[in-house]
Amino acid sequence: MTSAERPAAVLPPELIARFAAIVGERYAITDPNEIAPYLTEERNLYQGRSQLVLRPGSTAEVAAICRLATETRTPLVPQGGNTGLVGGQTPHHGEVVLSLRRLDKIRDVDVASNTMTCEAGVVLATAQARAAEVDRLFPLSLGAEGSCTIGGNLSTNAGGTTALAYGVARDLALGVEAVLADGRIVNGLSKLKKDNTGYDLRDLFIGAEGTLGIITAAVLKLFPKPRAVETAFVALGSPEAALKLLAIAQREAAGTLTSFELIADICIDFCVRHGPNIRAPLPSRPPWSVLMEISSQRDDARDTLEKILGDAMEQGVVDDAVFAASLDQRNAFWTLREVISPVQKYEGGSIKHDVSVPVASVPQFITEANAAVTQLIPGARPFPFGHLGDGNIHYNVSQPVGADKAAFLARWQDVHDTVHEIVAKFGGSISAEHGIGVMKRDELPHFKDATALAVMRTLKATLDPLNILNPGKVV
Amino acid sequence: MTSAERPAAVLPPELIARFAAIVGERYAITDPNEIAPYLTEERNLYQGRSQLVLRPGSTAEVAAICRLATETRTPLVPQGGNTGLVGGQTPHHGEVVLSLRRLDKIRDVDVASNTMTCEAGVVLATAQARAAEVDRLFPLSLGAEGSCTIGGNLSTNAGGTTALAYGVARDLALGVEAVLADGRIVNGLSKLKKDNTGYDLRDLFIGAEGTLGIITAAVLKLFPKPRAVETAFVALGSPEAALKLLAIAQREAAGTLTSFELIADICIDFCVRHGPNIRAPLPSRPPWSVLMEISSQRDDARDTLEKILGDAMEQGVVDDAVFAASLDQRNAFWTLREVISPVQKYEGGSIKHDVSVPVASVPQFITEANAAVTQLIPGARPFPFGHLGDGNIHYNVSQPVGADKAAFLARWQDVHDTVHEIVAKFGGSISAEHGIGVMKRDELPHFKDATALAVMRTLKATLDPLNILNPGKVV
Repeated sequence: MTSAERPAAVLPPELIARFAAIVGERYAITDPNEIAPYLTEERNLYQGRSQLVLRPGSTAEVAAICRLATETRTPLVPQGGNTGLVGGQTPHHGEVVLSLRRLDKIRDVDVASNTMTCEAGVVLATAQARAAEVDRLFPLSLGAEGSCTIGGNLSTNAGGTTALAYGVARDLALGVEAVLADGRIVNGLSKLKKDNTGYDLRDLFIGAEGTLGIITAAVLKLFPKPRAVETAFVALGSPEAALKLLAIAQREAAGTLTSFELIADICIDFCVRHGPNIRAPLPSRPPWSVLMEISSQRDDARDTLEKILGDAMEQGVVDDAVFAASLDQRNAFWTLREVISPVQKYEGGSIKHDVSVPVASVPQFITEANAAVTQLIPGARPFPFGHLGDGNIHYNVSQPVGADKAAFLARWQDVHDTVHEIVAKFGGSISAEHGIGVMKRDELPHFKDATALAVMRTLKATLDPLNILNPGKVV
Repeated sequence: MTSAERPAAVLPPELIARFAAIVGERYAITDPNEIAPYLTEERNLYQGRSQLVLRPGSTAEVAAICRLATETRTPLVPQGGNTGLVGGQTPHHGEVVLSLRRLDKIRDVDVASNTMTCEAGVVLATAQARAAEVDRLFPLSLGAEGSCTIGGNLSTNAGGTTALAYGVARDLALGVEAVLADGRIVNGLSKLKKDNTGYDLRDLFIGAEGTLGIITAAVLKLFPKPRAVETAFVALGSPEAALKLLAIAQREAAGTLTSFELIADICIDFCVRHGPNIRAPLPSRPPWSVLMEISSQRDDARDTLEKILGDAMEQGVVDDAVFAASLDQRNAFWTLREVISPVQKYEGGSIKHDVSVPVASVPQFITEANAAVTQLIPGARPFPFGHLGDGNIHYNVSQPVGADKAAFLARWQDVHDTVHEIVAKFGGSISAEHGIGVMKRDELPHFKDATALAVMRTLKATLDPLNILNPGKVV
């Protein structure tokens, strides 16, 4: 998928020189070979183009870049770890890339206040590690954590596997510093949990995919590091049973239930066949599995998990379960979970969805989507898995065995339309975690409340009247 | 404090009739005696005036009122339970009062999704009770819960005593329905925890005190109802010791630590002297106390609390502690906490603050504020208490013994300036919980980041260009 509708403006050399003067020659990249990695992403789904990548080293430099961009009407595409999945970080029309990766300082760790102030370019895994050093947890966790950045996590309001207990990225930030299109800096680096002095600008920048302002730093929440973590892989007959197990688990564990991942058998099948040393965790091959985890400060995590599974078995909700007996086994469970999406490529084309519906509607959604998709493309293989506790299902679809990959992928939009209509029926979201970017921008008007979308457009026009910041994304 | 700078516009009878036609004669109040309760508030700090109170019965009627208000340039003041503390709900300039109290339906309770959809006029205690009926907890809790409404709670982003574990009102809403100044309805009644389809309009309306839109309904989060609650009243030597106890408690209890209230001895002294059958919980009269509570799904709450206090005593952090041995005793502890603020009136004038600073800075803030206030007014009695776990201290100041009340209260602004300067030094907030309203509007520019304030004004001008919604409040 490329977006070449618009011809790229050629940047005059004098303008490139002016931008370069802000960050220093060394951090103004114009060599096409060096620029190349900023233009593509891992899946090769998007290919951008750009003459200039700027790597500012401070918020003041970001502000100066925005001022010059506004003065010269030069559009900018902010970029963190370049791991986004909806083309939001790609310069589709020759925009200048504004890479935030050099803003990689952890400015402050305040253990007593349970906060950590990170610049936008701090890699998520680095933030997690720094928190661990002071016996704290920064809970955000997702597949790309080794390369994605805090700025990108916040700009896309990342979710991941711990959102059930700790919330999404939005819930993990107390305040942000952001640069507006005209270069003004909003200093919202508050460590305060309670601050009712006006409108919530923080949440306006978070999740806006860099279209309303560029997040340059954030105060993040830290949590006590759990002392006991217990993990189980559970066999069930249906998503309905998984929902019943979730209710029992929440009743018994409340906020200490930190993960609850639903996995269809086909996902485990693909992992075992194609993954790196993956074994099926359960001797039986149940139609559905749940990977669940309890994290506690006390030594009761195992008891809690046993109580949950005992109750569930008594009620006929759970057929079988295996506890992680060691850290190795726990890691094996999670490795399986993490390779579910990547191994799909060994089975040909895959059409991926990132949807959410109310938790109570997940089983019905899966039933209806399975029926609709296999009716649309006979032999297509629904491949649902995801964060049941958040109602967030990655409803992927693998091509029929032996079918032509290109022909299958050509049905991408048909399949999306079919699945998203069912999502809409349940009051769901067509982008639960990944954002809109360019991938879902044109679909959005069909699914979003018209007034909400109108207000979004008004906000964009107000805060970025010249359309400097990540133009063509989201709205 | 009254605001009579502007002469009230007189509403023409035809206009009153047009508004009345929307809600029906019965719900358009024009009798001054019936209007009176909407114009004053409990403390008699503000006295508004208005010719017309409208009591719409549906979101559509609210929308029609806004359309007519926009057409005729008639300003509106939205009002819930009329319990706000900063004059935000008062028609200071003869505005039409838009009372949301008839929007009192609980539209939906979805136990499996852990959500409850409430209209704006649902009383907080009613929402709590409905949640309890389905074995769930709606955790928001504050003094006015018997009369304040969900719409007001969200519009002011209310905090309260459970924010430590469950967050403030903003954290408890998944989505809102709001009516814009021109009558358009934003339908954001999402039950989704994860929804990344564009800008976060929800958090723009929440905490905006009705100046950007009128919240008419919200989807609220429900939590498992704790099965075990253990409460202790703890004696300490200083706020520093309380901070150490907090660290131990969070390490041991994490999210199950649901309350942590710091109380200076003078507060207990006033309660014992003037409160309804209040006894000091501890035989000794320590300089500082903490009221703390652990809520758990398991039977380990008592063990956890004992472990925390045992560790704290061993480390010399805690001097003494008493557990609530019965529900009656627990209620007695909380009654004391709840009457702290009201009993101040029996000791003459009180100048109240609602501030927050980073948790780690609370002890230093109290020390410096005590010194500054008693230097400013010798004999003034600092009266600090509040939610230490959130860095939110109600730093109240009672008048010197025997001083003239009026003369003391005349120093309100001096004292505020003094305390708020210290708050600002620590990166704190001059309104942690109660909002800005009119009380702190003119102070805000001195303390708020100038760019943030400019963006707030831009947002107000964009979303309410005719200044129809709660004019003169916040910005």
